[in-house]
Amino acid sequence: MKTSRLEAFSDGVLAIIITIMVLELDTPEGHDFESLWRTTGHGLLTYLLSFVYVGIYWSNHHHMFQLADRVTGGVLWANLSLLFVLSLFPFTTSWMEESDFAHTPVVVYGLNLMGAAVAYFVLQQTIIRGQGVDSRLRRAIGRDLKGRISPPLYLTGILCAQFVDPHGRAGVVIALACYVAGALMWVVPDRRIDRAVRELGSPD
Amino acid sequence: MKTSRLEAFSDGVLAIIITIMVLELDTPEGHDFESLWRTTGHGLLTYLLSFVYVGIYWSNHHHMFQLADRVTGGVLWANLSLLFVLSLFPFTTSWMEESDFAHTPVVVYGLNLMGAAVAYFVLQQTIIRGQGVDSRLRRAIGRDLKGRISPPLYLTGILCAQFVDPHGRAGVVIALACYVAGALMWVVPDRRIDRAVRELGSPD
Amino acid sequence: MKTSRLEAFSDGVLAIIITIMVLELDTPEGHDFESLWRTTGHGLLTYLLSFVYVGIYWSNHHHMFQLADRVTGGVLWANLSLLFVLSLFPFTTSWMEESDFAHTPVVVYGLNLMGAAVAYFVLQQTIIRGQGVDSRLRRAIGRDLKGRISPPLYLTGILCAQFVDPHGRAGVVIALACYVAGALMWVVPDRRIDRAVRELGSPD
Amino acid sequence: MKTSRLEAFSDGVLAIIITIMVLELDTPEGHDFESLWRTTGHGLLTYLLSFVYVGIYWSNHHHMFQLADRVTGGVLWANLSLLFVLSLFPFTTSWMEESDFAHTPVVVYGLNLMGAAVAYFVLQQTIIRGQGVDSRLRRAIGRDLKGRISPPLYLTGILCAQFVDPHGRAGVVIALACYVAGALMWVVPDRRIDRAVRELGSPD
Repeated sequence: MKTSRLEAFSDGVLAIIITIMVLELDTPEGHDFESLWRTTGHGLLTYLLSFVYVGIYWSNHHHMFQLADRVTGGVLWANLSLLFVLSLFPFTTSWMEESDFAHTPVVVYGLNLMGAAVAYFVLQQTIIRGQGVDSRLRRAIGRDLKGRISPPLYLTGILCAQFVDPHGRAGVVIALACYVAGALMWVVPDRRIDRAVRELGSPD
Repeated sequence: MKTSRLEAFSDGVLAIIITIMVLELDTPEGHDFESLWRTTGHGLLTYLLSFVYVGIYWSNHHHMFQLADRVTGGVLWANLSLLFVLSLFPFTTSWMEESDFAHTPVVVYGLNLMGAAVAYFVLQQTIIRGQGVDSRLRRAIGRDLKGRISPPLYLTGILCAQFVDPHGRAGVVIALACYVAGALMWVVPDRRIDRAVRELGSPD
Repeated sequence: MKTSRLEAFSDGVLAIIITIMVLELDTPEGHDFESLWRTTGHGLLTYLLSFVYVGIYWSNHHHMFQLADRVTGGVLWANLSLLFVLSLFPFTTSWMEESDFAHTPVVVYGLNLMGAAVAYFVLQQTIIRGQGVDSRLRRAIGRDLKGRISPPLYLTGILCAQFVDPHGRAGVVIALACYVAGALMWVVPDRRIDRAVRELGSPD
Repeated sequence: MKTSRLEAFSDGVLAIIITIMVLELDTPEGHDFESLWRTTGHGLLTYLLSFVYVGIYWSNHHHMFQLADRVTGGVLWANLSLLFVLSLFPFTTSWMEESDFAHTPVVVYGLNLMGAAVAYFVLQQTIIRGQGVDSRLRRAIGRDLKGRISPPLYLTGILCAQFVDPHGRAGVVIALACYVAGALMWVVPDRRIDRAVRELGSPD
């Protein structure tokens, strides 16, 4: 089985996920900038964050499948698992925003990020295993420092949102900072981050 | 007419069906794990079940059309019939879940599964008939034991939900078990199930 | 400019139109077959009618572009016009069904069918004009009897719904019969209808 | 990385954006033409305007990528930025229409148009920069007079809606005229507008 139709289907699902989140934005009741900001400000920023994450997954998915040769049953279901976890973003994004960034919804959003990272990793490993000893994909991803940094970052966010400052905002703010940092890490041009990561990660 | 545009269109429709079901998930009113589970727990599991079924149909559709050479009018309309039946899943899923798994909605969900199996079978036969005596597709599907086991499984579920324990939960639970089993049968790796099926089905 | 991306975009839009109509189906409040039929029965049949019409347009679009060589600005905008008119089906379908088939909504649905037929005809002519004197597409469509029969059929429906039996159901029933007949004419296998049409249309 | 999958993904997102706006159209409560016009008239015209703008972006995007050779990280993110801004159209369209064309929502719609123009320009420049000194794309777009006329037109609209006649309709009407003119400029056949633009812009 060739990868082209799996890619086309994944593109379709990701395009829908990334776009339907905008349907969750409430129309402001008032007709001025203040009520726009009050009703939609947070929603817009949250939508942007999730948009960027789905964009990152689409881009990484795209790169990864350029090095995949064929689709086995395992790859197919690992891919569907990833799509399932990503399809929950409209729900977790909407809950986080509607709750005005309460503790549990911020934890759940972090779990969604973590779940997506795990599903992506499983898909990657499934492809690598299918390619045998000198897998092209394994050589291409190398040490994959970005991929390794992300889960601890999400975990930090989850733990802060759950346990730090349960009656105030500090834990939630740290968590959101972790999620934003996780997105920025993938978006900023590769060379700069790669160099930074190389220095930090040199004893690896 | 070539199969590529029919496949692209079907991919688009299936991608939308599999994704819009997540729009039916209600955002919890409370902001804790308990209200998440109460509001969305069942919805999430039901969504997962339908996601897996649509994923199975996408995957089987994908395989089948690799062995189809051309699209006749009959194939085109048999394919649209299948897409129509599958497009009802967001509706039947949502009703089953909102009714908290009442008898009739569980029956209707089973009828949807059955309808999809029938529409898929009709599409398969339409392609095979078009290919003539030594159809490549007929040889490839062989005895198609999975395809043969599914309808009786759905039927069992439908009958149990309708007639067994009409004032309690037993019939519904058996029905759901049948539907889940039907999905698992397609998801678990082929070799193992094939061997099991071969043993069970050997006198066939 | 090649036709492939225009076809892919049109496939995407048509796939969405054909699928989102199912989101309009109301979930029954009761949990039995009677309330399913009362709440959703008409909605389901109306959805089926619109699904078939969008399916017909997709199929005809598909065939037509196999004979189109290149995309000019005119073709591009004629195609977008067709997509716009077709994108109104979820709206007109939903109004017709929610109004329980009141006169005006049935007229508007007919106008939507008529608008789609006109937009399709304009697109066809735009492609033919671009192909010059011995247009491949012109030769392929021949006398296009189906295409010629549809608009008078829709017009009959519109006029009946508007003027016949304004306080009763007769006009609406005739209109719906016209719309259903228009769909059936395209769906039933070509040879049979072609022969019927040839006999009816022989003095043409 | 090749451009085909980026184009397919963009097509998917644009197809969804252009189609889901129809979901915002409210079904009229009455069942006659008057209530259709009252409930949906403005909505339909606004939808048409946004449909045309998204159609223009799809068409321009399509043309531009025929001259793009490869996808760098910069192109990928510039493209996602454009898709993000365009994905806000369902929201800004809906607000503008629901507010019955109040001042601020009309300003925000103009800002959305402006944002899309800027994002498109950035994407164009990113591709050109990647192509080096004798970029094919740069030569093809030439002086790009349409692209240069659009932003001042949107800006005029925004300023009029914000500052002209704050208690009446004049400012809003001028703004809408600017937005409609901006769309028409791209839709009318190229030769005529090109000639007009050439005359107006000759000292350029």
